[in-house]
Amino acid sequence: MNYTSIKEIDSLKKWVKQALKIKKDPLKNQRLGKDKTLVMLFFNPSLRTRLSTQKAAINLGMNVMVMNFGTEGWTLEFEDGTIMNQGASEHIKEAAEVVSQYCDIIAIRAFAGLTDKEKDNAETVLNGFVKYATVPIVNMESATGHPLQSLADAITMAEFKTKHKPKVVLTWAPHPKALPQAVANSFVEMMQLQRDMDFVITHPEGYELNPEITKDSVIEYNQNKAFENADFIYAKNWSNYNDYGKVTNTDENWTVTADKMKLTNNAKFMHCLPVRRNVIVADEVIDSENSIVIQQAHNRTYSAQLVLQKILKRLPNKTKSLEY
Amino acid sequence: MNYTSIKEIDSLKKWVKQALKIKKDPLKNQRLGKDKTLVMLFFNPSLRTRLSTQKAAINLGMNVMVMNFGTEGWTLEFEDGTIMNQGASEHIKEAAEVVSQYCDIIAIRAFAGLTDKEKDNAETVLNGFVKYATVPIVNMESATGHPLQSLADAITMAEFKTKHKPKVVLTWAPHPKALPQAVANSFVEMMQLQRDMDFVITHPEGYELNPEITKDSVIEYNQNKAFENADFIYAKNWSNYNDYGKVTNTDENWTVTADKMKLTNNAKFMHCLPVRRNVIVADEVIDSENSIVIQQAHNRTYSAQLVLQKILKRLPNKTKSLEY
Amino acid sequence: MNYTSIKEIDSLKKWVKQALKIKKDPLKNQRLGKDKTLVMLFFNPSLRTRLSTQKAAINLGMNVMVMNFGTEGWTLEFEDGTIMNQGASEHIKEAAEVVSQYCDIIAIRAFAGLTDKEKDNAETVLNGFVKYATVPIVNMESATGHPLQSLADAITMAEFKTKHKPKVVLTWAPHPKALPQAVANSFVEMMQLQRDMDFVITHPEGYELNPEITKDSVIEYNQNKAFENADFIYAKNWSNYNDYGKVTNTDENWTVTADKMKLTNNAKFMHCLPVRRNVIVADEVIDSENSIVIQQAHNRTYSAQLVLQKILKRLPNKTKSLEY
Repeated sequence: MNYTSIKEIDSLKKWVKQALKIKKDPLKNQRLGKDKTLVMLFFNPSLRTRLSTQKAAINLGMNVMVMNFGTEGWTLEFEDGTIMNQGASEHIKEAAEVVSQYCDIIAIRAFAGLTDKEKDNAETVLNGFVKYATVPIVNMESATGHPLQSLADAITMAEFKTKHKPKVVLTWAPHPKALPQAVANSFVEMMQLQRDMDFVITHPEGYELNPEITKDSVIEYNQNKAFENADFIYAKNWSNYNDYGKVTNTDENWTVTADKMKLTNNAKFMHCLPVRRNVIVADEVIDSENSIVIQQAHNRTYSAQLVLQKILKRLPNKTKSLEY
Repeated sequence: MNYTSIKEIDSLKKWVKQALKIKKDPLKNQRLGKDKTLVMLFFNPSLRTRLSTQKAAINLGMNVMVMNFGTEGWTLEFEDGTIMNQGASEHIKEAAEVVSQYCDIIAIRAFAGLTDKEKDNAETVLNGFVKYATVPIVNMESATGHPLQSLADAITMAEFKTKHKPKVVLTWAPHPKALPQAVANSFVEMMQLQRDMDFVITHPEGYELNPEITKDSVIEYNQNKAFENADFIYAKNWSNYNDYGKVTNTDENWTVTADKMKLTNNAKFMHCLPVRRNVIVADEVIDSENSIVIQQAHNRTYSAQLVLQKILKRLPNKTKSLEY
Repeated sequence: MNYTSIKEIDSLKKWVKQALKIKKDPLKNQRLGKDKTLVMLFFNPSLRTRLSTQKAAINLGMNVMVMNFGTEGWTLEFEDGTIMNQGASEHIKEAAEVVSQYCDIIAIRAFAGLTDKEKDNAETVLNGFVKYATVPIVNMESATGHPLQSLADAITMAEFKTKHKPKVVLTWAPHPKALPQAVANSFVEMMQLQRDMDFVITHPEGYELNPEITKDSVIEYNQNKAFENADFIYAKNWSNYNDYGKVTNTDENWTVTADKMKLTNNAKFMHCLPVRRNVIVADEVIDSENSIVIQQAHNRTYSAQLVLQKILKRLPNKTKSLEY
């Protein structure tokens, strides 16, 4: 079992329930990971994901080995058949299979490059590991998805929802730098699994996410209209998907302010963090009682722990090493 | 309980005694840290502090997660109310509170920038974490202090003192690069807690440390005179505090040589390390039997272990995770 | 006991047998490393060595502290008597002795600089640690040797050999960048300990390895002739040892292809990895059934575990800390 995308979730309702159970007693399965090793490979920076996933593994009694591929390793080649006489020192084929031999699960963070849409959509790094590794792969944010984040978001909404069918709004917000669509994509996919929630995506015209992901999700270009009666506002910037990887809009009118929050049904404010204050969201909103960004980040531990726990339970029993 | 400065020590005598007890049996409290996690955050390089603090945590049975904020994370914002459209990706408010949720203690290393005196004196990073974190904070060298080092120094002097009221001299020594005042500051503050020691600071005129720290400590501008009859010589460079962060003196006459040590009462030589040989101190001195720099470094483990142990004993009993 | 070179192996046959026994039950000695700490110091990048050595330590129940000296620490000085007013902040004397106090074993990776032959041959970094550390030192690839790799190679050949006296060929292969001779050197030294193997080194004229290492090993400049009847082909690039550290040949005719493998006795293909595909070796060879590079990498864990296990068994019993 891999956990590479939200699509791996068979029943979101069940997973959220299980995660909340873990949260009540995080050390209960401390023996499940005994003598099992998680390798965390980072091709990009990380704070929450790094610490929460490591903490989740520790809660399960696992050993953890962390490696920053950029600074501690070298460049990998992902194309087949290349004459490797340029920058890359090792092919993903060898790297993935070799690392698999030193651990029981591999977790990978590899962002979108945002220059080559096709390559990003192909999930070269993540899928390279899925293809060539011989152990389960966990996605710690890939080019097009961040399913550990969205699972944590689902857990958080389950904790904070106060009515049967809340309205959830994913709103684009401005940002000075080009950011991937990964978090937004996985949030959309997770919302498509929610049965009892109304979901609206709002963003400036031209900032449509990949239509193969949004499918028939409702898109409302008028942010104010989208906010009306909302119970959860989930803010996130992403760079232009059509004019791929470009920042074609930094309109401050899309910043989430207290005035905008007044349009909602006293909505909770959510963001995956890190967040640029007074660019994505005004201080007055993120510092308000309705902001649940810290709790969201907290649930990253239980989201990761649920995923690791499910994988550990399905691991083949290889107490003895393979013999050739 | 935090350990951010020497001022947290209620009774230096008692703390030194407790640390020496730990040193005799470092694994005695191996169950105290069970299922507790230390996060070590580095904004600057580290050798002794990194390894000794991690070792101390291991001796206490803790889990340790290490993160280099510079290379593995991103730039933090420390000002309130900023429109974060520049380099910083996350505000200390979120970062500190989020990290707190993944651990029981946070240890931080964040040096002085040495360009903005007011900002360094404000201890922006350390105090940011103290303010916004929800778990205890340990200072692994901040802009103005290095209290784990000075506690180790006190332990070392207690082991090596041979008479009731030894004379201790903190001497400035030359260095090609601008260094912070942190180690000197904490050493001075620690010496002010010593009851049975005579203390003299010696440095070139104009190299006075912050007078709010030195207070009424004796300053002697004549190094030779200061060395007379000394039982401990503690060498350290710091950059100019008045002409802030500048190297306005590299006078080789201040290097600690064997000739200068002859002026002392067969004094022990101390330095926090890393030390530039034949710049701060001559080989003949640091390689002599009277040099106790290695033992000082060894005591870093017990200094850190005492601090972690005290904090662990005071931790609220949160066996179950918080529920919202 | 250190493990700095292949020369530390008293009986290769016995070591290989012991390693294969560990491989059958890697967790058997899980209590041997209890409360023992391994510090891994990296002066250069690493993937296999980093993860396999850490995994080996974990299998033995050890604590591991990893430090990247380049990015997390500072530059060390290795010369005696230097006036350290340049780039280096600390002398190996202090660094090695200090780190020793925080752990029971130090493992070090420090590549050849390939600009100063004499300095590389002097093994400045590795030997600096051997000289000044007070705990055992393990070589995770030094300027002139990679004995953990060659021990893994010996284990792998023992597993895959199918006849009494196989023929083993070490072949140079082209590479765009200047690589150290370390892997080739240790492989040659290991082969000199093999009793029942025929050994041939093949490389272009002028690419002779250090004759003090190759000694009377057979050198054959005709690669095709060398491959005839071979049972193991071990490919590796190294830069010119005579015209030190230069790439004076990138002849593609030396790439290991399927046609060349046809000259052999259905030989197994070996390489230490990372390998540049279609430069060192053609896809058709490394992807063939005869390629055992992944199994080689797997054996790195057991090679490291055997070494650590031997060292742990010889450690003096220092349950209590030293007192001064």
